Amino acid sequence: MPYFDYNATTPLHPAALAVWLETAGQAWHNPSSPYRSAAHAHALLEEARERLAAVAGGAPEDYVFTSGATESNNALFDYFARKSPPSARAVVSALEHPSVLEAAQSRFPQRTTLLRAERSGLVRLNNLESTLSQGNVVLVSLMAANNETGVLQPWREALQLCRAKGVPFHCDAAQWFGKLPADVLAECDFVTGSAHKFGGPKGVGFLKISPNQRGFHGQCGGEQEHGHRAGTENLPAIRAMVAALEAYTPRLTPNTAGWESARASFEAALLMAVPGAIIIGANSPRLWNTTMFIAPREANTRWVTLLDKHDFQISTGSACATGKEGPSHVLAAMGFPPDAARRALRISAGWDTTPADWDGLLAALAKVHAEFKN
Amino acid sequence: MPYFDYNATTPLHPAALAVWLETAGQAWHNPSSPYRSAAHAHALLEEARERLAAVAGGAPEDYVFTSGATESNNALFDYFARKSPPSARAVVSALEHPSVLEAAQSRFPQRTTLLRAERSGLVRLNNLESTLSQGNVVLVSLMAANNETGVLQPWREALQLCRAKGVPFHCDAAQWFGKLPADVLAECDFVTGSAHKFGGPKGVGFLKISPNQRGFHGQCGGEQEHGHRAGTENLPAIRAMVAALEAYTPRLTPNTAGWESARASFEAALLMAVPGAIIIGANSPRLWNTTMFIAPREANTRWVTLLDKHDFQISTGSACATGKEGPSHVLAAMGFPPDAARRALRISAGWDTTPADWDGLLAALAKVHAEFKN
Repeated sequence: MPYFDYNATTPLHPAALAVWLETAGQAWHNPSSPYRSAAHAHALLEEARERLAAVAGGAPEDYVFTSGATESNNALFDYFARKSPPSARAVVSALEHPSVLEAAQSRFPQRTTLLRAERSGLVRLNNLESTLSQGNVVLVSLMAANNETGVLQPWREALQLCRAKGVPFHCDAAQWFGKLPADVLAECDFVTGSAHKFGGPKGVGFLKISPNQRGFHGQCGGEQEHGHRAGTENLPAIRAMVAALEAYTPRLTPNTAGWESARASFEAALLMAVPGAIIIGANSPRLWNTTMFIAPREANTRWVTLLDKHDFQISTGSACATGKEGPSHVLAAMGFPPDAARRALRISAGWDTTPADWDGLLAALAKVHAEFKN
Repeated sequence: MPYFDYNATTPLHPAALAVWLETAGQAWHNPSSPYRSAAHAHALLEEARERLAAVAGGAPEDYVFTSGATESNNALFDYFARKSPPSARAVVSALEHPSVLEAAQSRFPQRTTLLRAERSGLVRLNNLESTLSQGNVVLVSLMAANNETGVLQPWREALQLCRAKGVPFHCDAAQWFGKLPADVLAECDFVTGSAHKFGGPKGVGFLKISPNQRGFHGQCGGEQEHGHRAGTENLPAIRAMVAALEAYTPRLTPNTAGWESARASFEAALLMAVPGAIIIGANSPRLWNTTMFIAPREANTRWVTLLDKHDFQISTGSACATGKEGPSHVLAAMGFPPDAARRALRISAGWDTTPADWDGLLAALAKVHAEFKN
């Protein structure tokens, strides 16, 4: 499939589809209702929580099912804003997904500190320790892997700095789950996941909460999710999400050198085929599936349109930001001027992407580049 | 099917299932991505909005898709709390679903006025006009039909009182959609709907917003839903929800006397079979599908368990409140003591419920009653 936008969304994994159908057909009762078929649905819900914890680490009761990463991130900052004094501050990286950045700034207006980034795509942590020492910080948020550049962030180091100061640490891992082993994230106090980024259905995700933060409460109006989040549980989607993550888990390894080789060949050839292209974060640790590059000429929107005519689907950056039409805030945080950001293209592969797909994409990029030159 | 808990949730309508499968299989791309297949998904999203408006009234751009009624209600009160001065008040009926009651009290702490109810199950509006005259009220919320008793509320009158004072009016119509014609609700400023109450999937719903309230904004972090609600759109569920509502719409009529006759026969026979039973809201306008009654003896939980053994599924009240184990706040608001509320049973039928199902339920109730007497 000539689809290279897996960081935007993924097709439903067959295992997820099968579980969704089975659950929607046979376990559609309200898990909170008081009869046996509902109790069965409730048992399946708790089983899903146990299975998620088995692959993603931590205890089952650490996991709160939500409608997706955006809800998880919004609910988290809202929770901390409600329980903290008016002087409380949040610290988030400037590279975060808008659902973290905007949730922080909405709930901690004028009280959100942004961590700046290097040209390499890595966040700068050198100021984090001093920022934490000033007190008043109630939450730090740093993503596991950037959705645009794929650059893996030093979340372990940030976690240790937070731990030393007793400050809760949140990791938005929407792009990590399904691509790298999940259980290492469980040491974070809060972790965000989104099913449709790893072959699960849209409209479902989770927030892992710390055992020390059992007061967490998202949307109110019922005792569902162990009192953490009201609303009738979306059992078919929840079970399908867990099935998708389980399906990918055996393939996940901390050493992704094997998976990276196809991309490495592609990137080397890309620099030949499109002279002047700049690979973003080329020397940084990155997700094995993502290449972001700045084209030497023409707006990224033109590249995307012409590649689409050649049946290759890539992106100009985050799908969430598409409506805004502004240049990427991620590239801006890394110090790229708007002019360069408007030539940025994101390529993100999936587990089913073949070497032939990479070759085809390269050929299409070369063709489009040639069309621009003429 | 001996299922009499349609007010808790409903099985997926075959039309909804077919559309979900088609969409998840063929239009799974991120509607915000910049290529043709994503543009197709985006077009389907806007088509769903148009079709929803066609059956539920108003303009397509009035509809914001959410993860369900609980999100819709929470987001609404959060929006008004954020945009209003600290002295602003909300007015909600004491009969509301917890997702309205608790959202109001969470966002307007000590500034939420509760409208009391009559023993009949109807809210009292006699104080609303004077409450509105005192000023400071920024939002009034009254449900269309109560989820426990089925009693239809005087939302039209409340709307007129609010209109006269220029105060926005919200109607939680989660139990109305799919049972009564939807388009009459469109005159309300805000309307909440939930797909799984009318044969749609779980995890999806909507909030209809007033053209005068285009500043509405729920969870943040992206420009989806015309800027009203961030998060990757759950297109399969959205399209399936609209398909379910369309499927039921031809059956909906303001005059439900025909549908009510099966229930009327059931209720008359119930009072004979279980002497001393009290039908709640017997003389009030009610949803055609709902009977709530107070049993003369034994806790409602025992009734439910024994009926379940006879394969009939009914409820003790709202599924959302089951975890709480306290007596119904709805019956309390109507003046019933806790002792009576603990004997309350809710029966809610669906479009596929047959006269034979009603007869079967009656026989089962009589049997259980006889078992209690022995």
